[in-house]
Amino acid sequence: MELIVYLAGEIHTNWRDELKQKAESLQLPVKFVGPMENHDRSDSIGEDILGKQPTNIYKDEVASSINNLRTTVLMNKSDIVIAKFGEKYKQWNTAMDASTAVSLNKPLILIRPESLHHPLKELSNKANVTVETMNQALKVLSYIFEEGNID
Amino acid sequence: MELIVYLAGEIHTNWRDELKQKAESLQLPVKFVGPMENHDRSDSIGEDILGKQPTNIYKDEVASSINNLRTTVLMNKSDIVIAKFGEKYKQWNTAMDASTAVSLNKPLILIRPESLHHPLKELSNKANVTVETMNQALKVLSYIFEEGNID
Amino acid sequence: MELIVYLAGEIHTNWRDELKQKAESLQLPVKFVGPMENHDRSDSIGEDILGKQPTNIYKDEVASSINNLRTTVLMNKSDIVIAKFGEKYKQWNTAMDASTAVSLNKPLILIRPESLHHPLKELSNKANVTVETMNQALKVLSYIFEEGNID
Amino acid sequence: MELIVYLAGEIHTNWRDELKQKAESLQLPVKFVGPMENHDRSDSIGEDILGKQPTNIYKDEVASSINNLRTTVLMNKSDIVIAKFGEKYKQWNTAMDASTAVSLNKPLILIRPESLHHPLKELSNKANVTVETMNQALKVLSYIFEEGNID
Amino acid sequence: MELIVYLAGEIHTNWRDELKQKAESLQLPVKFVGPMENHDRSDSIGEDILGKQPTNIYKDEVASSINNLRTTVLMNKSDIVIAKFGEKYKQWNTAMDASTAVSLNKPLILIRPESLHHPLKELSNKANVTVETMNQALKVLSYIFEEGNID
Amino acid sequence: MELIVYLAGEIHTNWRDELKQKAESLQLPVKFVGPMENHDRSDSIGEDILGKQPTNIYKDEVASSINNLRTTVLMNKSDIVIAKFGEKYKQWNTAMDASTAVSLNKPLILIRPESLHHPLKELSNKANVTVETMNQALKVLSYIFEEGNID
Amino acid sequence: MELIVYLAGEIHTNWRDELKQKAESLQLPVKFVGPMENHDRSDSIGEDILGKQPTNIYKDEVASSINNLRTTVLMNKSDIVIAKFGEKYKQWNTAMDASTAVSLNKPLILIRPESLHHPLKELSNKANVTVETMNQALKVLSYIFEEGNID
Amino acid sequence: MELIVYLAGEIHTNWRDELKQKAESLQLPVKFVGPMENHDRSDSIGEDILGKQPTNIYKDEVASSINNLRTTVLMNKSDIVIAKFGEKYKQWNTAMDASTAVSLNKPLILIRPESLHHPLKELSNKANVTVETMNQALKVLSYIFEEGNID
Repeated sequence: MELIVYLAGEIHTNWRDELKQKAESLQLPVKFVGPMENHDRSDSIGEDILGKQPTNIYKDEVASSINNLRTTVLMNKSDIVIAKFGEKYKQWNTAMDASTAVSLNKPLILIRPESLHHPLKELSNKANVTVETMNQALKVLSYIFEEGNID
Repeated sequence: MELIVYLAGEIHTNWRDELKQKAESLQLPVKFVGPMENHDRSDSIGEDILGKQPTNIYKDEVASSINNLRTTVLMNKSDIVIAKFGEKYKQWNTAMDASTAVSLNKPLILIRPESLHHPLKELSNKANVTVETMNQALKVLSYIFEEGNID
Repeated sequence: MELIVYLAGEIHTNWRDELKQKAESLQLPVKFVGPMENHDRSDSIGEDILGKQPTNIYKDEVASSINNLRTTVLMNKSDIVIAKFGEKYKQWNTAMDASTAVSLNKPLILIRPESLHHPLKELSNKANVTVETMNQALKVLSYIFEEGNID
Repeated sequence: MELIVYLAGEIHTNWRDELKQKAESLQLPVKFVGPMENHDRSDSIGEDILGKQPTNIYKDEVASSINNLRTTVLMNKSDIVIAKFGEKYKQWNTAMDASTAVSLNKPLILIRPESLHHPLKELSNKANVTVETMNQALKVLSYIFEEGNID
Repeated sequence: MELIVYLAGEIHTNWRDELKQKAESLQLPVKFVGPMENHDRSDSIGEDILGKQPTNIYKDEVASSINNLRTTVLMNKSDIVIAKFGEKYKQWNTAMDASTAVSLNKPLILIRPESLHHPLKELSNKANVTVETMNQALKVLSYIFEEGNID
Repeated sequence: MELIVYLAGEIHTNWRDELKQKAESLQLPVKFVGPMENHDRSDSIGEDILGKQPTNIYKDEVASSINNLRTTVLMNKSDIVIAKFGEKYKQWNTAMDASTAVSLNKPLILIRPESLHHPLKELSNKANVTVETMNQALKVLSYIFEEGNID
Repeated sequence: MELIVYLAGEIHTNWRDELKQKAESLQLPVKFVGPMENHDRSDSIGEDILGKQPTNIYKDEVASSINNLRTTVLMNKSDIVIAKFGEKYKQWNTAMDASTAVSLNKPLILIRPESLHHPLKELSNKANVTVETMNQALKVLSYIFEEGNID
Repeated sequence: MELIVYLAGEIHTNWRDELKQKAESLQLPVKFVGPMENHDRSDSIGEDILGKQPTNIYKDEVASSINNLRTTVLMNKSDIVIAKFGEKYKQWNTAMDASTAVSLNKPLILIRPESLHHPLKELSNKANVTVETMNQALKVLSYIFEEGNID
């Protein structure tokens, strides 16, 4: 039994690669999917496909429509969602994706530095598990497969 | 036919009172509900009811559990959700509530200053309507009742 | 027990008024809701609220976002949907609203002239009942209340 | 991870073949399904199986019942729906299928010539992404698999 | 708190009137709804509204479409469904309505003579409660309001 | 793409075997599942597993609980349901299973002799397609795979 | 806006009366519903209505079917569920009702003595709020109505 | 067709191993999943991953959050749930998991000693099948595959 894990959240660090490598070295039967990690591509995808838009707001609107389509397709296929918050940026799309996971009954692991506990308290309360580091998130994933659960 | 509107979002300005007064002067058959607007009460409600918690994180956890219960009860009763973002604060609970509304098929009106269009682009794309001012949100509400729609 | 009926479809004739008057004269406990019937207002509502848009496509986008919000709010409140197709116009939004009703398990009555039976065959097959005239639709509504069913 | 894409819409041009060939040449892990593309077969399938019907309306009714069954089976299996509108025909079944996709939370890509933007504005607003050409639709599909998302 | 009870099943005896009178004499806050009880009207409603159909099968098809619409509207409004089976007739529509109630999470009370226990065993197993007489069904309804539960 | 088809209905003839053989000879990518076809085993399964019950009604209750569990497991896995009615027996569990399929949005093909059209009219109206013979049902299944739809 | 609160849990103390009185004295717009509180009646209701059963297990089966029907009807009408665990008895039906509330997205308040924290830890984690006393539960209810939320 | 079976319930005996071995010897195409069976690990998993918590209640809270995540992931993948109650312990999480299965329309087999029939009567009534021994549960599983049902 293979599980699909959607990795929501910040795209300015390489935390996804780190997580993938560690999961592989543990031989966890997990496949990771997630958003476009190339920030420029993510911001320009609307105009890349549909051409120049009249204003920056409409440039953003067409880009976000394609990013949301990607997220919906991949989250629908997922068994678990991990959402990672960092110190920088607004990250409202991360909060949105995490909340969607909860509404779809997809178990949610929230990764956030302790410093963010106050502004994330309501989302943390809705998440199944809140951790501070990727290693902790990985241990939660790993726990699902412990004790001969999966052949 | 009366509609119930949940007012998600910032609790540091009196935008809800303004909206209620204007809706009343227009005699819109609308009832507004929303989160606790007393910020200190909202932060301390967990300890107010359950007593002193061992750490600030646990103080936040118990407060948010009660705030989320309130939001869920009232949003379940609502026909429309309005979510207002301001220039300050992280506002991740606002993004979470707005996303929940979308998942529950509750129509969502997003109010945000133009300056926030980029970080809110994915959420704006999921909202039914995005506006910049309360007056515009009120006009959207008012439009539902135009042309003899409601006896 | 009062039933709420959403009247989807063409806004270029006064069929809704006719239907309302006949239902009233029959004293059916039915309340009708529906889309904006002022065509110009419906097309310009986006710019009326949000101001001039850069292109006609974006003018349409903002108008339709507000029209869809209105439809979603009112259809969520409805017990039955009646969708009327006429000889003119594309009427794709009518087909969209009718299909949404089916997906939401809201019983759907389709009104269409016999001449349109071929292009509407798939939608007619999904509708609960297909009729050709408003009088027939009214008789279907009336049948729900026959034989002392409702006090 | 292979995605299944339902191709709703016009069956008078060979756009599906074109799309399939391009997707293959890009080696996208996508399988396409869709309606009966032989128009005569689609119209006569009811009588082909159930025998001569008493009127054309009933011929249409039995044909559409089988076409709708096929669509429901295949759309239920799909991860994405692409709906293509052309300049000709009423295409109400296309609007119906597109709307069903939205209700089932299946991401929807709408392809339509710019000339149709006004009558399709409400459906376009509900679609995740609206494009004008098959190439653009293909680029949206391709974007889902970019940046090492899928092994 | 008033409960709405849909009375599915045989329309050849006056069991609904009996049940209504007894519920009234017990002053239970219950409103009963149900199918057309005039058998001839129920069978001819399609042709009554839509005119003569070419065959008996199509006469039945149009009648059943309107009967099913009525049932769906009223069952959607109901809190409880009571389905009564008698010794005569096929009663497959009763089995269909009872099964729909189970799927919609509407509590189901089945009334059937003991003689029918074998052919109804699977449906009886899905029902919440199976009884043999109307009086027993009434006692189940009455139990909901016992001990000061409802003001 | 393989489809799973649940074969509800009579277990006194070998129609399932016939259907399977024909589907195989047509090389349709279809897997059939269904209820226990050994009638005695089906009736005694409760006592076979749980031991002698005090009355026939309780013998039936425990048997039907296990039959319903089997049906639910297999219908949940299915893409299509075929329900066959014959001239004999009450067949209320067939009507129940057919109605469950409709509620679960599983496309339903009804097979019934023309002689049963009147008592099955409401269920026939809810089915996607009604046919009279197994060959016709097979042609409907086959149509799903026509015109290169499935690789 | 009145809220309906289902009071699940122990029926051997008069905690419901206490809660009702306090809510009344606070003039909270809340209506309470719940299970049969007369324990003997609850255990014998099956035989009271259906007559003597052959074994105690079947006596229990018929009683529980009617108790579950009552609970389903009333919980479906409720906006909030409060589940109270005491020191005595197995209380598995309380755990079952509490879990059902969570699955139905009905906010759940769990009342339990601190001594039971370990065996209730998984259920407590799924509840929205866990408290130790009725007064605390009442304060949570009261908080929903604070700050002019409800007219 | 392989079925996935979630084994909820007591973790102090080795009943799962016994069940797995017997299913293997019968060559049933069934995969079993379930909770962490190492009791100490299950209780300490929160602190094992997140570090020492300030109180035993918070130790339990973090452990249960991770246990619930594991259960949700695996139950979402399951086709059937078997819940086993023993003579010892409160087992409220077992009741919770069993009830969740019912709400998710996952067929539920309850295993309990006859001595527990009274306190488990409501849950037993909601389960699809109640048995007393593992062998009986295995026979129910085996029955699903009888009579050539699965190729």
